Amino acid sequence: MKEEHISSVFDRELEGIQAQIMKMGGLVEEAIRLGVKSLETRDEELARHVREGDRQIDDLEHQITERAARIIALRGPTAIDLRLILSVIKISGNLERIGDYAKNMGKRTGALSQMAPVGDSGASIRRMTRMVEAMLKDALDAYIERDAVLAADVIARDEDVDQIYNALFRELLTFMMEDPRNITACMHLHFIAKNTERMGDHVTSIAEQVTYLVTGQHPDEDRPKADTTSSTTEA
Amino acid sequence: MKEEHISSVFDRELEGIQAQIMKMGGLVEEAIRLGVKSLETRDEELARHVREGDRQIDDLEHQITERAARIIALRGPTAIDLRLILSVIKISGNLERIGDYAKNMGKRTGALSQMAPVGDSGASIRRMTRMVEAMLKDALDAYIERDAVLAADVIARDEDVDQIYNALFRELLTFMMEDPRNITACMHLHFIAKNTERMGDHVTSIAEQVTYLVTGQHPDEDRPKADTTSSTTEA
Repeated sequence: MKEEHISSVFDRELEGIQAQIMKMGGLVEEAIRLGVKSLETRDEELARHVREGDRQIDDLEHQITERAARIIALRGPTAIDLRLILSVIKISGNLERIGDYAKNMGKRTGALSQMAPVGDSGASIRRMTRMVEAMLKDALDAYIERDAVLAADVIARDEDVDQIYNALFRELLTFMMEDPRNITACMHLHFIAKNTERMGDHVTSIAEQVTYLVTGQHPDEDRPKADTTSSTTEA
Repeated sequence: MKEEHISSVFDRELEGIQAQIMKMGGLVEEAIRLGVKSLETRDEELARHVREGDRQIDDLEHQITERAARIIALRGPTAIDLRLILSVIKISGNLERIGDYAKNMGKRTGALSQMAPVGDSGASIRRMTRMVEAMLKDALDAYIERDAVLAADVIARDEDVDQIYNALFRELLTFMMEDPRNITACMHLHFIAKNTERMGDHVTSIAEQVTYLVTGQHPDEDRPKADTTSSTTEA
C-alpha cells in the first residue's frame, strides 16, 4: 500500500518533469519557426524577440536539471526510472543547444536584411528548417510515447537534412564563384544552413536517448553520416 | 562509524568517476592536438587515427553516465554530492562533443591536402586550437581543484578565441574575393575555424559547470560574446 503510494507520487513527479520537457520543446520549436521567419521576412524585431526568448529556454533547462536532481535525491530511483531521469537531463541539454542555434539564426537577420537575396537558397534553408522542426516534434512525441520505431525514423531522417545541406553548400560555392559580391551573404547563409544541420544532430541525440530509454541500448553511432562536404574539393 | 565507512566508500567512488573524466579529457586534448597536426602536415593517416580514436571517447561518455547512475542509485547522494555527479554527466557530454569537433577537423585533412595553402590562415587556426587546448586543460584542472577563479579565467579567455575567429573570418572573405579559386579551400578552413570556436564554447560550458559546482550559481549567460561575424556585412 505504502509502496503504491510512494510510486504514484514518483509517477506524478516524473509526469511533472516530462511536462516541463514538453514545454521546453514547444518553446524551442517556436524559436526555430520564428527564427527562420525573421530571416525570410528580414524582420529584425522578430529576431530580437527570438533572442530574448532564449533566456526562458535556458532557465527551463536549469529548472529541469535541478528538479531531476531533487527527484533523484528524494526517491533514489533505480533502473528504468533512473534512466528516465538521466534522459531528462540530457534531452533538456539538447533542447537548450537547439534553442541557441535558433537564436544565432535570428542574429543573422540584421546582416542579411542589408543584402540582396542570393538565388533561391532561402528556399533550401526553409526546407531544411521545416524538416528539423518536424523531426523535433516527432522526437518529443517518441519520447513521451516511448516509441522506439518513431525514434529510429527521426534518426534516419537526419540524413535527408544532411543531404539538403550538402546540396546547399555546393550551391553557395557556385554563387560565390560566379560573383564575389555574393560571398558575404553566402557566408551568412552557410552559417544558417550549418546551424540548421547541427539542430538536426541534436534532435538525433534526443531520438537516440529515446532508443536508449526504450531498449537500454545506445544506437550505433557509426550510422552513415550524409554530410560529405568534408571531402568536397570542388564546387 | 558506519557513516564514515559509507562516506569514504562514496568518496572513493567519486574519485573513481572523476579519474574517468580526467582520462576522457586527456583523450580529447590529444584528439585536438593530433587533429590540428593532421591538418598542418596534411597527414591523412593521422587524421584516420583521430577519427578512430573518437569511438573510445564516445564509449567513455557512456561508461561515465552509467557509472554516475549506479552511484546515484546506490548512494542517493544529496546537495553538493549530487550536484557533483550531475556535473560529471554534463561535463562528459561536453567532452564528447569536443571530441566530435576534433574528429571533424581530421575529416577535412583529405580535402585540404589536395589544395594549395591559403595565406597564413593555417597559423591563425593553429593559434585558436592551441588556445582552446590550453583552456580545456585549465577547465579540467579547475574542475579537479574546484577552482572557481581559474574557471572564470577560462570563461573570459573564450572571448579571445572568438576574436581570432572573427579576424580569420574576414581574412577568408578577403582571400575568396581576391581569387575565387580560393573559395573551396576557404570554406574548409572556415569549417575548421568554426569547429574550433565551438570547442571553445563547450570548454566554456565545462568551466561554467565548475562555477556552478563551487558557488551553486549558474554564471550569467549574457556574458558579452565576441563573435561579431553575425553582423558582418562586408569583408
